[in-house]
Formats: sequence, C-alpha cells, structure tokens
Amino acid sequence: MALLLRATTWGLCPWRGYSSKGAQGALSKGFVEALKAVVGPSSVSTAAVIREQHGRDESVHRCQPPDAVVWPQNVYQVCRLAALCYCQGVPIIPFGTGTGLEGGVCAVQGGVCINLTHMDRILELNLEDFSVVVEPGVTRKALNTHLRDSGLWFPVDPGADASLCGMAATGASGTNAVRYGTMRDNVLNLEVVLPNGQLLHTAGPGRHFRIQEECSWLQPHGALCGLRGDTGPHHSHHPAPAPCEATVAATCAFPSVQAAVDSTVHILQAAVPVARIEFLDDVTMDACNRHSKLNCSVAPTLFLEFHGSKQALAEQLQRAEEITRHNGASHFSWAKEPEERSRLWAARHNVWYAVLALRPGCKGYSTDVCVPISRLPEILVQTKEDLKASGLTGAIVGHVGDGNFHCILVVDPEDPEELHRVEAFAQHLGRRALALHGTCTGEHGIGLGKRQLLQEEVGAVGVETMRQLKAMLDPRGLMNPGKVL
Amino acid sequence: MALLLRATTWGLCPWRGYSSKGAQGALSKGFVEALKAVVGPSSVSTAAVIREQHGRDESVHRCQPPDAVVWPQNVYQVCRLAALCYCQGVPIIPFGTGTGLEGGVCAVQGGVCINLTHMDRILELNLEDFSVVVEPGVTRKALNTHLRDSGLWFPVDPGADASLCGMAATGASGTNAVRYGTMRDNVLNLEVVLPNGQLLHTAGPGRHFRIQEECSWLQPHGALCGLRGDTGPHHSHHPAPAPCEATVAATCAFPSVQAAVDSTVHILQAAVPVARIEFLDDVTMDACNRHSKLNCSVAPTLFLEFHGSKQALAEQLQRAEEITRHNGASHFSWAKEPEERSRLWAARHNVWYAVLALRPGCKGYSTDVCVPISRLPEILVQTKEDLKASGLTGAIVGHVGDGNFHCILVVDPEDPEELHRVEAFAQHLGRRALALHGTCTGEHGIGLGKRQLLQEEVGAVGVETMRQLKAMLDPRGLMNPGKVL
Repeated sequence: MALLLRATTWGLCPWRGYSSKGAQGALSKGFVEALKAVVGPSSVSTAAVIREQHGRDESVHRCQPPDAVVWPQNVYQVCRLAALCYCQGVPIIPFGTGTGLEGGVCAVQGGVCINLTHMDRILELNLEDFSVVVEPGVTRKALNTHLRDSGLWFPVDPGADASLCGMAATGASGTNAVRYGTMRDNVLNLEVVLPNGQLLHTAGPGRHFRIQEECSWLQPHGALCGLRGDTGPHHSHHPAPAPCEATVAATCAFPSVQAAVDSTVHILQAAVPVARIEFLDDVTMDACNRHSKLNCSVAPTLFLEFHGSKQALAEQLQRAEEITRHNGASHFSWAKEPEERSRLWAARHNVWYAVLALRPGCKGYSTDVCVPISRLPEILVQTKEDLKASGLTGAIVGHVGDGNFHCILVVDPEDPEELHRVEAFAQHLGRRALALHGTCTGEHGIGLGKRQLLQEEVGAVGVETMRQLKAMLDPRGLMNPGKVL
Repeated sequence: MALLLRATTWGLCPWRGYSSKGAQGALSKGFVEALKAVVGPSSVSTAAVIREQHGRDESVHRCQPPDAVVWPQNVYQVCRLAALCYCQGVPIIPFGTGTGLEGGVCAVQGGVCINLTHMDRILELNLEDFSVVVEPGVTRKALNTHLRDSGLWFPVDPGADASLCGMAATGASGTNAVRYGTMRDNVLNLEVVLPNGQLLHTAGPGRHFRIQEECSWLQPHGALCGLRGDTGPHHSHHPAPAPCEATVAATCAFPSVQAAVDSTVHILQAAVPVARIEFLDDVTMDACNRHSKLNCSVAPTLFLEFHGSKQALAEQLQRAEEITRHNGASHFSWAKEPEERSRLWAARHNVWYAVLALRPGCKGYSTDVCVPISRLPEILVQTKEDLKASGLTGAIVGHVGDGNFHCILVVDPEDPEELHRVEAFAQHLGRRALALHGTCTGEHGIGLGKRQLLQEEVGAVGVETMRQLKAMLDPRGLMNPGKVL
C-alpha cells in the first residue's frame, strides 16, 4: 500500500486527543485550528451566516447547517481534510453550487462542509482525444466557455449551471441526453478521495479516455454523493457541430398533452436523431411567456433541436414535421439564428425560476420520475389530471426523449398542510412510475426525500447490497451521512 | 429481507453434513445427488471428457476441469445451485460458449461449472422501447436472428458468437463499438444471482430501459465474472438501418501502418459517424486472403462501414475517401451489395481462425490493449516492429475506432520457451499501453494472465478496493475464485 497520499494521515494523528463533538454539535477549537492548518485561516469559516448558506440547496428541505465550511484549493488538501475528519469521526459534506434539488447538502449530522468552488481549474485539454481533465468545482458553463474556440463542447446540460462534481454525484441528465447521453456516458475517470484520505482513480491514474466509468449502479441514487462530491471528474466531450454542420431549433404547440407526447414517442421510434426534445405543459408555457418574455401559445408544447449537416438536417426536419403535424401540431416555429435559439433555450433553462415566480416567496419541489418511453403518454396524461385534482400549483416540463419529466410544485414552506400534500403527490407519482417499470429518480438522486421509494424500487436485496457497498467504502459512516440509505 | 428467492436456501441445509472436498478434489456423492435434485439427473455430469471440455476456453491457458458440470434451465435453479454450493463451500464457475480468451472458465480451485446454454430463451421483446429481456445463454447471433424482422438489431459484435452473459462479464466491445458502444452502453439491467442464492436486480426488477447499468467499474476486469456469468442481462438495442437508410462497406489498402492509423484518427476527429472501422495488418490480410478466399492487397488495410440515409451516406463516404486518399490509400473498394458486405465482414470475423491456420496445430494468444486514439499510430507502429524483432508469428487487427487492437500470436502450446516469449511480448505491450495512458484490457478482461498488469494499471488502492468489493459480494470466495485479484 505505498500510496501517493496515504502519508496524509500521519500529520493528523496528534489531533486524536481533541474532543470534537462531531455529529452532535460545534467542533472543538483545536479541530478548527487543524482545518485552518490544512487550507489556511481565511479558507475556514464557522460564522452562522456562512454555515446557513451551506445547509440548504434549492429544494424545500429545511436548512441544516454544517459546523464549519472549508474551501480547499487542491485534491491534496481534500485528502488531508478527509483524513483529519476520519481520525476525529467528523462527518464530511461536499458542496458544489448548491443547486441540488434533493437536500443532498443538508448537514443532518453536522460536520465539515467542503466547498469545492475554489477548485475550478481546467487542468488539461486533449483535443485529439476529445477529453478534458477538470477540477471538481468547474461548472458546465465555465467548461463550455473555455471550450468555445476549440471546436468541442460538453453536452450534459441539466439547466442549472451546476458544478461538474455535483452533476457526477447525481448522474445528471438534461436536455441533450437524448442524443449525447448523461453524465454516466460522458465521465471517463474519477479521482475519488476515500474517507481515510486515500486517492482512488476509477480508471487508472493516467486514463482520460472512455473505457471505464465509475461504479454507476449506485450513482443515480446518490449513495456515493459524499465521496463523489470530492472528486475531480475527467470528462470526454463531443465535437461541436462542425462548421459545415448546422443547428435548428423549433417549437410546436399541440392540442393536448397526449398529442405532444405521442409525437415524442413517434420521433424516437422513427430513429430521427433529435438532439433535444423537451415537453412543456400549458402552465409552464404561461410561466415562460411571463418570465422570459416569449410570445408562445399557452398549450402543451415541444421544444426541439436538430444538429447535422445541411442535408441531414433537412431530412430530420421533414420527418419531425410530418410526425408532429400528423399528431395535430400547430404554431410551428423554426429558429435558425443563434440569437433566436439562445432565447428559446434560455427560457427553457429558466423554467424553474419562471414557475417559482407564479407564487413569489414560495419554494419549489421538483419530481424527476422516468419511465420507458412507451409508457410516457399515459403517465403524463394521468399526472396532469392528478395535478388539477390536487389543487396544488404545479407545472410539467421534461427531457421526454429520455422518458424523464419534472413536475415542479410551488409550495409555501411555512404551510405544513400544503407541504404534506406536495409530499403525498410526489410519493404517489413515484409509485405510479414504479408501476410502469420506471424509476423514482431520473437525475436528481435520492437525497433525503425519496428513501422510501428507493426501498420500493430496488427491493430489500438491492438496498442491503447498496448499504454494504457504502459501508465498505465508508466504514465509519462519515461521508454525507443520513442520505439515501 | 423478505426475498423472492431467499427461501431457496432452506432445502439445502440437510446437505451441510456432507464432506465435499470442494476446492481440492472430487465432490462427494451426496453433493452430486443434491445437484441432480435441483436440475434433474440428466443435467449433471462428472464424466472426464465433459469436465475437460469445460476447463478451457480458446486461449493458451491449460485446461483445468471443474469437478462437475450442471445445465440449469432457469434462474431459480441457478439460485438453488448457488445456495447449495454456498452451504458446502464449493466454488462456482459460469460457462457460456467457451469462446473467452483469458482463461476465465478454468476451474483453478475445482468446483461446479454452471453451463448456461440451456437458458437460451428470449423472454420479452419491447419494440416500442427498443429493449429485450433475454436469458444468459442467448448468443448475439441468436438474438439478431430473432430480431431480424423487427426492424431492430443488437449491435455489440466481438466476432465470436459469444453468449450475452459472457459478453456482459468481459465488457465486450467489437466492430460496431465506435458508433453503437460496448456492452456497458447496451445493457440496462442485470438479474444477478448472489453467492448465497439471493437475486439482485441492478436496476430494479421491472426496469428494462436505459437508466442504470451495473457496477461497471469492475466489469472490464472481470472481477465479477463469477457473478455476472449467472445473470440474465436485459439489453437495449438499436433500430436497424431503416428501409430508407443504406449501408456501405469499404476496404482500402495503405502504404504503411502509420498511414492507415492516421486515417482512422483523422476520420474520428472529423466526426464522420463511421459505424465500423477496423485495421488489419499485412499478415492478417494475407491470412484472410487464404482462409476466406479474398483477393485483397497484402498491405495494411482498413475495413469501414457507414450507415445512414442516402444523402447522409454520400457525405460520409466523400469525407472518408478524401481523408484516406490524403493519407495515401490505394485499392479503394466499395461494397454496396449485402452479399459483398457479408463476405467482407465474415472474413473479418474469421481472422482468429485465419491467423491460427498459419501454423496448424498451434494455439492463439490475443492481446487487447487500448490507448487514446491520438496515441494509436505510435503504439501500432512500435508493436509491428516489436513483432518483427520477436520472431513470433503474429498478426495485428483491431477495433481502432475505439483505440483498441489485438495482436494475435500463434504459439505451440507444447513449447515452453515460445510460450514464455509470447507472455513476455504481451506483458511488454501491456506496459507500453499503460505508459501511453491506455489500459491492458479493452474487452477480454483480466482473467488469469493479466493480474500483474492490473496491479500496475489501477495501483494498490484500486486493487484493494476491488478486492474489498469482491469480498463484500462474495464473502466465502466461491465465485470463480483465482481470477483477476
């Protein structure tokens, strides 16, 4: 076991004597000094306001602040922090941009929050192999800005400008997944800090290219969030549409939810290589019109995008238009200019805020069930009816090409009765997806709110195997405890 | 833990008293009777000739026969067999078609070989979701024959008509991987029999569609071979080129290895969506001409295939031809007719036997290193020189679009000195690939021969983590012991 970073544990043994309260309360002064010795005094905070900023994400889960927040500058500091916490039995919670939707950053047992936003360097760009090595705090937009003139782009796009480490932890999907895959398909290698400070490379230290990915089975459920958040993912990426290639976006409105989703299924079954296909219901379109100054029909709508050479594009467009018209589409609108396309997709990306703006001061709760595409029409139609019957404020939007959709519910976090109704609605929708051979989580992860659904989805053997796997990798239960399992 | 199949353990407890020698020798009579009670008397054999057929694959690894061979008919029988072996401490070795190349089926500690070829039913075909549920003994050709009229096909094609369970166990790649991905990309869910007879579904019992895959990190190294071999993989598959689509194959010869591989790299970097791109060196072409009655130049050659609509195809062909001509290609030959294409790809698939025919009576040893595509020209040129210098009979062929290539060495298994030279050559090539940020195994797995290279590739933390993971899933070390770790 002659390891690069095993030595990081030795410097920390003197702190064993300190009586950190760890799970239950504030950290000892000595422990906080030890954190400062690793990252520098200005990169540690125990201020209440800072801790509170780090105890919540964008979900309705109540704020549960950590005992301290640290900002490491490199992976070696993360290793030393992990080893320090391991010696003292203090939980670790990784933090990217705080844009999660399942309470993954809530410090349910206290501990040290490791904010990774200062680790935001793009370390290596291998144009010939379509790969890039990044630190975990790089966001998807920062990466694409960096890549702008290279002829390459990173396609995974969940909407929020999330950190790549957070996207890896939740197995992010997004609008481009139908053609370019999810994080699972685009991450080649992870540098993982184990709880004791050891460094693990999931595909060998030198490997940046696509042979192996990380243990993906647990990933969608976020069981390894705690570990994954501390990682430096290595990403592959795709050539941007080449100069000879073109991009066309389109919106088309439909007379019913059924007609819009039937069109989606038919387009996929006809193997039209659509780059994006997003469904937005009438409530979402109304919210977008107001928030993003669009002037679209308030009707069930598809946003589409096609990439390809001019000839290939013409064929794709013709086929898609035939299918959508056959299903009763109206208000067809093609957006060929970059500005027009950007406006459309910016509106799509701001749906979360547009829907929240329907009830100012309230919080959002987003489901993320996913079903086989053949079952999508029935679950969407049923969910739309459930939503009307529930009396809740909610909008439906989704990466329907993946069978994945979101029901964004707007809720007053101070109203326990309404919160309870939202939770009941989400559980019911999750069970509906399971009954249709779907999953309760397509991309947000299990976090705090979907633990019961996970049990129902993977069964007792599945949960027990996950539990054993987590215990093997995290024997002291310090990596983001209280989530998933 | 109320499980579907946990109850399978109870019937087996009476056998605990039997003194099976397990690891070291023949099984007790009572144990063999217990096997017969599970699968029926005619589905168990302890005959020497049968055991010897099951103790080797197509590699040079010496035959190590199991103590008994059983042919279960369904997964419940596999669960009961596993539980029986678990009670008695008897190793289990799964067996598909025996076409492996790394000694994965050698019973190095004796035990029961579970032959899965009688579990060959296609259970469910979901045309709308592009998915199929199969038993583990279904081969890739049998699946594609079944799919022939459905408009869909299963693209993973490693050459041999391997069982889908074996392909899942080794993470098979193959000629179509450059466009359609490897097993990892095409397996949606695995039904895994755990050592104690429990059934685990890697993506929930009802899920046939692409959200999660199995724990893929360990897969390429075959650490879970023992488990994986007992699985009933669920596969997605791709629409066959639609009626409006066309397929064109081509061969083109080059003046040098460098020119052929440079062309590959340039075609990929130009984002031409080539469906197959295979490199065959002069020795391979000579062997193919003799064995498959081709009449091609004896020169470094690329076999290419393109799928698409007629317009898209014309663009792809034009771009590929420009690139190859720029690199000095000659003897261009397009094969548009199905018969002509079939003949070409049959020749490619029979390369293993064509090369073996160069020295009748000898065995083959195939390396399967893989490097980032930018490093492919240098490693191929170096390997060709090493091969000449070694005095060994060897041919190079590869799925170069993946950065993956095979050096097929023909060796007299009775000549220890030559065997030693072959092993030394393979180790040297593996280390060369690691030095170029590659891997020692692109698709055959670690098996018996690459354990030292695995250590060098993933490091001590990597191997130790794999070992712990294997121990967690297989605490008594009964699932195909002695492989990988």
